[in-house]
This record gives sequence, C-alpha cells and structure tokens, in this order.
Amino acid sequence: MDNEFKILSTIKNPSNLRNLSDEELKELCAEIREKLIEVVSENGGHLASNLGIVELTVMLHKSFNCPKDSIVWDVGHQSYVHKMLTGRYEQIDTIRQKDGLAGFPKRSESVYDAFNAGHASTSISAAYGIARAKVLKGETSYTIAVIGDGSLTGGLAFEGLNNAGRFKKNFIVILNDNKMSISNNVGGLAMHLSHMRIKPAYIRTKRRTEKILTYIPIIGKLFKKILKRSKSKIKNLIYKNTLFDALGYTYIGPVDGHDLEELDNALALAKKCNEPVLVHVVTKKGKGYEPAETHPKEFHGIGKFDINTGEPLSSHKGFSAVFGKQICNMAEKDKKIVAITAAMTLGTGLSHFSHLYKSRFFDVGIAEEHALTFACGLASKGIIPFFAVYSSFLQRGFDQLIHDAAIQSLHVIVAIDRAGIVGNDGETHQGTFDVSMLNTIPNTTIFSPCYFNELRHSMNAAAYMCDGLVAVRYPRGGELYRPFDYDNYSIDFDLYGNEHAGITLVTYGRLFSYACRAKERLKKEGIEINIIKLCRIKPIDPKAVELASLSSRIFFFEESLVAGGIGESFGYELKKTGKSFYYKIHGIKDRFVRHETVLEALAELELDDSGMMRIIKDNI
Amino acid sequence: MDNEFKILSTIKNPSNLRNLSDEELKELCAEIREKLIEVVSENGGHLASNLGIVELTVMLHKSFNCPKDSIVWDVGHQSYVHKMLTGRYEQIDTIRQKDGLAGFPKRSESVYDAFNAGHASTSISAAYGIARAKVLKGETSYTIAVIGDGSLTGGLAFEGLNNAGRFKKNFIVILNDNKMSISNNVGGLAMHLSHMRIKPAYIRTKRRTEKILTYIPIIGKLFKKILKRSKSKIKNLIYKNTLFDALGYTYIGPVDGHDLEELDNALALAKKCNEPVLVHVVTKKGKGYEPAETHPKEFHGIGKFDINTGEPLSSHKGFSAVFGKQICNMAEKDKKIVAITAAMTLGTGLSHFSHLYKSRFFDVGIAEEHALTFACGLASKGIIPFFAVYSSFLQRGFDQLIHDAAIQSLHVIVAIDRAGIVGNDGETHQGTFDVSMLNTIPNTTIFSPCYFNELRHSMNAAAYMCDGLVAVRYPRGGELYRPFDYDNYSIDFDLYGNEHAGITLVTYGRLFSYACRAKERLKKEGIEINIIKLCRIKPIDPKAVELASLSSRIFFFEESLVAGGIGESFGYELKKTGKSFYYKIHGIKDRFVRHETVLEALAELELDDSGMMRIIKDNI
Repeated sequence: MDNEFKILSTIKNPSNLRNLSDEELKELCAEIREKLIEVVSENGGHLASNLGIVELTVMLHKSFNCPKDSIVWDVGHQSYVHKMLTGRYEQIDTIRQKDGLAGFPKRSESVYDAFNAGHASTSISAAYGIARAKVLKGETSYTIAVIGDGSLTGGLAFEGLNNAGRFKKNFIVILNDNKMSISNNVGGLAMHLSHMRIKPAYIRTKRRTEKILTYIPIIGKLFKKILKRSKSKIKNLIYKNTLFDALGYTYIGPVDGHDLEELDNALALAKKCNEPVLVHVVTKKGKGYEPAETHPKEFHGIGKFDINTGEPLSSHKGFSAVFGKQICNMAEKDKKIVAITAAMTLGTGLSHFSHLYKSRFFDVGIAEEHALTFACGLASKGIIPFFAVYSSFLQRGFDQLIHDAAIQSLHVIVAIDRAGIVGNDGETHQGTFDVSMLNTIPNTTIFSPCYFNELRHSMNAAAYMCDGLVAVRYPRGGELYRPFDYDNYSIDFDLYGNEHAGITLVTYGRLFSYACRAKERLKKEGIEINIIKLCRIKPIDPKAVELASLSSRIFFFEESLVAGGIGESFGYELKKTGKSFYYKIHGIKDRFVRHETVLEALAELELDDSGMMRIIKDNI
Repeated sequence: MDNEFKILSTIKNPSNLRNLSDEELKELCAEIREKLIEVVSENGGHLASNLGIVELTVMLHKSFNCPKDSIVWDVGHQSYVHKMLTGRYEQIDTIRQKDGLAGFPKRSESVYDAFNAGHASTSISAAYGIARAKVLKGETSYTIAVIGDGSLTGGLAFEGLNNAGRFKKNFIVILNDNKMSISNNVGGLAMHLSHMRIKPAYIRTKRRTEKILTYIPIIGKLFKKILKRSKSKIKNLIYKNTLFDALGYTYIGPVDGHDLEELDNALALAKKCNEPVLVHVVTKKGKGYEPAETHPKEFHGIGKFDINTGEPLSSHKGFSAVFGKQICNMAEKDKKIVAITAAMTLGTGLSHFSHLYKSRFFDVGIAEEHALTFACGLASKGIIPFFAVYSSFLQRGFDQLIHDAAIQSLHVIVAIDRAGIVGNDGETHQGTFDVSMLNTIPNTTIFSPCYFNELRHSMNAAAYMCDGLVAVRYPRGGELYRPFDYDNYSIDFDLYGNEHAGITLVTYGRLFSYACRAKERLKKEGIEINIIKLCRIKPIDPKAVELASLSSRIFFFEESLVAGGIGESFGYELKKTGKSFYYKIHGIKDRFVRHETVLEALAELELDDSGMMRIIKDNI
C-alpha cells in the first residue's frame, strides 16, 4: 500500500514536513487526498471538509512546532489530515471503527490533539484557555484555533473572539472559509465574509514574506521609525474594517487556501504580530474530488460510498426522511407550521420542505440557542415551529428550553433526530442526554416513537393535542425489527403479552424492537414476559404504571443515561403504588459511549435482545 | 401619594405620552426616577439599570404604538419604567412581592410584555421570531429589541444579530450602551463600542429630523435621484464601519440616551429604514441618583436600602462572601488556582480575588458557554479553574459541561451560587435545575454543603480530592438554623439520630437546617426520626443508602425538581438493596416557582420544617 503513498508514509511526525521541497509538499497533498477518499469510502466519515483543508493542515504543521505549539480544531471532523501527519498515518484505515482512531481530535489518543471536539464553535474559547494557561506557566509558544465560517455563526465562537480580542500573546485564529456551514451558510456574517472575499488580497501577489514583515510592529527597533511615519499605510495593509478588527484582531487575508506559498507567507506574517491575529483562508469544500466538490453537503458526513461514482453503498429510508415528508404534509394543510434547522437541512430531512415552503423555512446556522429562542418568538405570535435538531446538539439549548419555552408555556416543538446511540461519530455525538434533559423541565411533553407511523402520529399529537414545549425524539437510521403485523401503536403506551405474566419489560423508542425479539426468544426457553411500550415518556401515563405494578418483577430498559432518566421516574411512580416488586433499570450507567457501530454499542451496553435476555434471566 | 407624581399617575397607557409637551415629558422622567428610587428602596430590585433607561423608555413608548408594535426587553430587569407606563403604575409598589408585579417582563401579566425574560441576550432572537411571525401573518408593525452592551457579549445575542442581519421589515435593535455589564464590560466588543462613543455623533447636532430623512432610501421616488448621486455621502452619514454594519445593520448613533429630542430624532430615523437598524444609545447607569451613579455595580440588583444614604438596610455574611474568602486563601497557597466569572464579580463574591490576583482572574462577560470552554482550555494545561456562577445561568453551559469538561475528564470546578430557591427574582432565576442537570452527567462530582465550613471543606475536596468535573453548590444568603454545637460535617454524609428509629429523613443543602428543626419538633410530639444529611450528592455514598435502608419509612426532601433529581436516584439505589420500605420524595414537582421571598417559597413548597413535619406525619 505504502508504494502509492511514497511521501505520506514517511511522515512520522510534523517535523518531517520541514525537509520537503515545494514540489514534494504538493505531491504530499495529492497523496493525502487520495488516501482520504480511500479511507472515507471504506469507513464513512467526513470527506468534503477534510479535502478542503489539506494544504492548510500541511502548512500549519510545517509552520508551527506542535505539540509545543497547540492547534485546536473546531468541530474536529476535519482533523483526518492532521491525524495522518501526526504519527497516525498507519492507523488511519481504522478511523471511526471500534478500537480504531476516533473521527475527532482526542487528547487521550495523541499529544498532538490539544483539545477534544465534536460540537461546533468551541475552538477559540478552548485555545484562549490554553494560551492563558501558557502565560500563567511562563511558557511561550503559539496557540492556534482553526475554525470554519460555519462554526463562526455559533454564539460561543463570538464569545471566544470577544474575550481573546485584547490578548496579545501568540494567539492566532485561522478562519477556514469554505463558504458553507454543513448546509449553505446564512446570516449577516456570511454576507460580510463574501464581501471580504471579493476584495483583492493584499498579500496574494507578494512573492516574499520579508517585504511585508518590515511593516509589522514587533519586528524590531529598526523599523519603528518607519512605522511611526506610515501608520495609515500599515492600517491599509493589514486592517480592513472587518468585523474582526472591530473585535481587536489583526486581519490577514483573504488567502487562497490551496496555494502553499500564499499560506506560508500568511502564517509567517501571523507569527510576527503582537496582537491576536485572524487569518482568513478561503478553501473549497471537497477540493480535488469531483463528486464532493459538486455536492459538498452530501459529502459532509457520509456512509461508505463508491469511489468512482460517489454513490453511497447503502441507503435506506430513515426516520429523518419520514419526518421530512410528514412535516411537508402537515405544512400543506396548516400555514402556521414552520420548520427551523441549525445548519442541518439535509441531515434532518428538511431539504424538500426548504424548497416547497421557502418563507416558512429557517436555517439559522450553527446556532441552537438562537433557533429555540427564535422559535419561541414565533410561537408567541401563534405560529407552530418545529425545530429539527440532533439530540447531542440540542444540549446547547437547555437554558432556552427552560427559560424561553417552558416558563412561558410556548408551544414549540423540538424534533430530536439521532436520539440515542449514533455509532461511529462517538462520545460527542451520542444522543444520550436529551431524555434526562427534557425529563426535568416542567410543562414538557416527550414522545419517543419506535416506528415511522408512530413518528407521524407523534408529530400530529405534538402539533394539535399538546400545549407548551413538546419533544418528539427518534433514532438515527431506520426501523428495526417489527414483530406484529399491525401498525396501530398508541401515542401513550401499549401492552404486549399477558399482563399477569409476572415479568414485565418496560421500554420506549427503538429498544422496543429488541424487547420483542427478547420476548420471542425467552418464550422459546419457557419464560413468559409481557412488554409495556411507552411512546409518551413524559408525563408518564399512570395507567402504564398501574399495569406494570401487576408484575412482581419489572425491568426497565432505556437507551439513555440512567441518572435522571425515565426509568428512575417510572420506578418512583411504581414505588408510590405501595406494591411490592423487584425493579431493575438497565440503561447507560454514568459513562460515555465510544465510537463503534450502533449495533456494536447496543450489544456492548446490553441493550440488544441478547443483552435484555441475559439481564432478565440473571434476575428472575 | 399621587400628588407627588402628577403626570406619571395620569399615564394609563402609552398613548397618553403623545399628548405631553416637551417640558411635561421631562417632568415625567423626573417623577419616574423618584418613584423608582422609592419602590426599590422598599422592595429591593434592580435600580441602576432602570434609572439609566428612563428617557429611552419614555421615548420608545411615545414613538411606537404598543402593543401593536412589540418591544422586547433583554434580561428584563430594566422593565420597571416600562411597567409604569403600560397601565401598571398603580401596582408598581407591589413589584417583586408575592402576588405582586414580577420584576421582569411577563406575558401573562400584560399585553405590553411581548416576551418574558430574566436571562441575558435573548431579545434579538425573540424579537426576530416575533417579526417573522408578523410577516407570515401579514401584519405590519415594528418589532424592537432593547439590549444592553453587557448582554451583547452573550453569544446568543450575536446569533440573533447575525440571523436578523438580512431581514428587511421594521426591525430595530436598540443598543442601550451604559458601558458596563453587571460588572465592568470586557472584551474586544467593549473596546469597539468605546471607540464608537468618542466619535462625534452624526445626528446629535441636527435640530430637525426631516433634513436627515431626505437622505434615506425608502422615503420616496422624489429623492431617488439625489440618492444615486450621493451614495457615498449617505454611507458616511449612516454607515460607520461598525461591527453592526458588517452584520447588515444600518447603524444610527451614538445618541445621548438622556436627551429626549435626540432620542426622538433617532427613533424617527430608525422607523424609516428599509433594513434592520441598530440605534446606539449611550446611557448612564444609575442616572439621577447619586449613590447609584457612583456605584452602579452595587446598585444593579439590591435589597432594601436607605434612600438618603444608599446604604443597604440589611446585610449579613453569606455563602458568596465565604466562597470569595476561601478561594483567596486557596489561591495564596496554590498558583494553579484561578477564578472565572461571567460578569458577576460582585455577586459571586470575587471582588477581593479580582484585586489580589489580577492575572488569575477572568471576567468573561455574560458568556457562560465561553466561561466553561475557556476553563476547560485552562484545565487541559494543568490549571485549576473555579467558575463561579449562579445556578440558573449555568443552564447556558449544559453542553459545555458535557462536551468540553466531562467527556475529556478535565478538572474544572463549578462554584454554583444561588442554588435552590432565590426568592423575589422569580421563575427565571430559581436555582432548581442544576442538580438534575449535573446528576445526569457522567464523571461528575457534586457537593451541596449546608454550612459555611462545609463549603470551605467542599472547595478543598473539589480542588484536591476529586478528578474531572466537580460542582460545589450553595444557596443564596447565609446559614440558617444550626442545631448542633460542633461544625464537623463530613463531605460525604452524616447521620443524626438513632439509625434504628424506623423513620429516616434524607436531605442535602440548606434543607438540613429545617430537617433538624422538624426532628426537634417531632420529638416533642413523640415521633423519633433520624436524619441522613448528604453533602456529596453525586456519586451517592453506598453507605448512606445502606443506613437509610435500615428504616421502614424513608422521606427524601430536596430543594430541586423531583424529576431527574437526587431523590429518584437515591430511591433506585435503595430499591436495589432488596429491602422493603416506604419511600417518599418531596421536592419541586414539575412546576416553576414564582416570585416571593425564599421563606415564603419554601413554606409554599412544604420544604420548611412545618412542611416536612406535615408530610412525615401524613405518611406514618
């Protein structure tokens, strides 16, 4: 294999880059691209963003001296190139696989990974913390935050920018401007960046860095006089009335992010400034792989695909698509229905809606807090907003759920995609907190359907049978095993089996599929259980509790944290019946779930049918 | 009384303002100030911010036609003036009292309150939602967000600004720039605003609005030609290379926020723009009351005070002060200790630290998300950060607690002030969610001390006996009843009474004081109970569970939401012992707690000694 990757395979650590000629660096970039496409086509993952950042990553590691210098990658899905260049090339084929490299930076994986990531907009704050710590410890080295223009729409990034804006020491923000979030970029900031991009770059045509450096303040006494005389000249060269210099940054750019020499010059310039610097690097998402250049959204985070055509190898209708179709149906009949996404139009299944109902569709950028408060504003005037969002990203909006939605009892619907285990994206992306987060909020209704049709019914119920804050949560992917030949699930709860079986399994969401299998398999072994399947998990239906209390042994399975979850609340309701019974909750016990496939994770957590059987048999 | 407030008492709704002469308006402002000082000196509340916004509020209500037009107040503690002018003058003496007016805007209180608030930085997002809803419903009216420069440092405000930046319809942001957050303002933005303030105002000297309006695009065909010829001229007049026009706003200002005519002109100008507008209004916090002008931080949110001297009427040493002293002691011995606040230096007791350890003190502005991620950056390099924050504001950082702190097992300490019921600030400020929020997060330790000395021990334990994310939570105010004459509380748990009493009361935090009283009072009635007092509430000590399980009737009291709380987790641990017992959790049951004093609220919630006694006696 390594014959194909002659240069790449020799890079054991970033210092090796410094020995390469310009031609070799270019060749290296080509090899990295080839390897990226090969790996992601096999393993799935984030392709377009990594293809766009090849030259930038190479030049960052050539210009800076990691791990003494620290590079903090925002979101982190674009760190594959970084991993290849920092001693992990030989493991790159294992990326996102069980026991393999993580798909995101991870401190426990390498000293070159300065900070974990997975969610957007954290890099500037984290890097600023690292930079401040260095000052406190008397260390002098550079700290670099690499952030995309999409991530920059997140409020946390702004908070970071604002705070670091007066800091003087070796602090560099690299704005990787690929003109998109995961979806197309939105808002005033995107317009501002596009204005900046069309201005001629001041440093683009400069052949040599030196010439520019002479104008930069800290170079030395020699140039101080020149400096004084030509203050406005310097301003024109470096400052450009951007949002960034308003916040205290020296702005450098825009720089062609695929031109090695330009990058080299810009980074050299950035290193010399005695103020926080923002280097505006313009890149092309998907660069060098035609299908990804043409369809960067589709190649953002993907499953395995055919290298030649770019076509996905497996594709099946999932919950996101069902949600997307159903909201279109509802919107057709009811003009009050609108949809909101935080830069996840495609992922949440809203593409069709966005075309059909342009004026009722809002992509707010990577801004979950705003999405919710904005939804509350809409709801305060009688609109019915659906905010479609991945479970783990909804964590950003906890305060807005409480403070803006629930306290005011505003009728806002949160459609929570990727609820539960998500698989190869790992710890940062698991949807294992939304249940406990919402369970604690007063005036809230939560539905957790298991099947497509139930999702449709839950959405209708959310819009027309509920008040206040309502959540409808559904898993990544599609339906699992469906044991019964009818589709008439209640949005409250259902009972399967004989209520006097003595053993009751209570569950919700997709685990019901496994529960049914477990029930069938146990039956073959002569053990009869019945199942209570909750669809509405908050408020809990007292009738479901009453039914469960008819059994002497009750097992609650949930694909969520045990602490604060529904199992504990259900258990307390059971206890209140005053009856005597054995009660066991089996869920995720005070831990994070690492990257592996969904099925691998559920098996490891003993939340699949085999796991359920084991737990029941061990406790009867 | 109304004799003193001749004009104010005649204002039944905002339209009455339009009949007043300039002189009468000035007189009205004076009356409002007088009334404000009178009310807040009696009831406590937010004084300085309301004094600063008198003229602005008057002119907003004169210029706009509410409730058709919508004014959204950010944070909302500056809405007292607004309440006086919108039909609530006669009730203003009841503000912040049980059954009286709320200290914040509340939709359920008045049609003039367009959106509830209490936390910072929500106004632009909410107003944008309202404005969008109006478009969808075919309504044409203005929507105005009034936001302070402090609130503008919150990321949510930026997300809102960014999203509304391309919106064209009657959308106005009023920046109430008083040069401070609750503490002094920080960061690049504050510097930017200060630059803007020193530039001469373009509209300040204009006597008449008309002259300016002729230059504004939408005035009519008549001026289109002029417009075309003088584009750059207009740019100079209105645009000023500010952060705001970078985001798509027409910037108007700076305007003297205490000059009625200037405000009138600026608002008239803002109404005519066919783009989102930002009006930069410069105000003086505490304006018109000398003690508040001199000490605006102290007069931000205050208790009752003496009008003549400004001295607080009651003052006692509280948990915040003990925290502030202890962290200084710890910092003296350990250079790794640093402190972070989100604009709450005074409130969290960090003033002394901020002077003693300037380089280790970080006020990040109203930016809780950043505060946590920044703390994680520091911790990743071996620094030990204490982030001191009010419980209800920590809700903003839920994702950062999980994603940046807990997943990476970074040793970050959150000092949670105002944990539990806070009293007159009401629903938005109650610290009733931090327990359930933290309880669900893996790798987390939570201490909930009841007494000062326990707080000190908990802080030491957090810094030197724990790994990963640690929270130390303590209530607003001071120690309550202390029943025993020693101070040797364990940071794990303690038992009071005979473990074989048969009835066990389990609790944590300040409720222990009431529990002791209840124990004493019950003893007099011949009922013997014992108390298990938890200090570390996560992870729960198995020995505490074992001890509790010796009783046949167990009562768990908590000053927190029941759903997701410690009572449910403790109950499940008890259940696992396999023993048979009665178990009751008494906490806050799926509701928000309105504004009234702490003691009133605890009594209403049956969390004081009388409530505990009632619940125990009813269930034995």
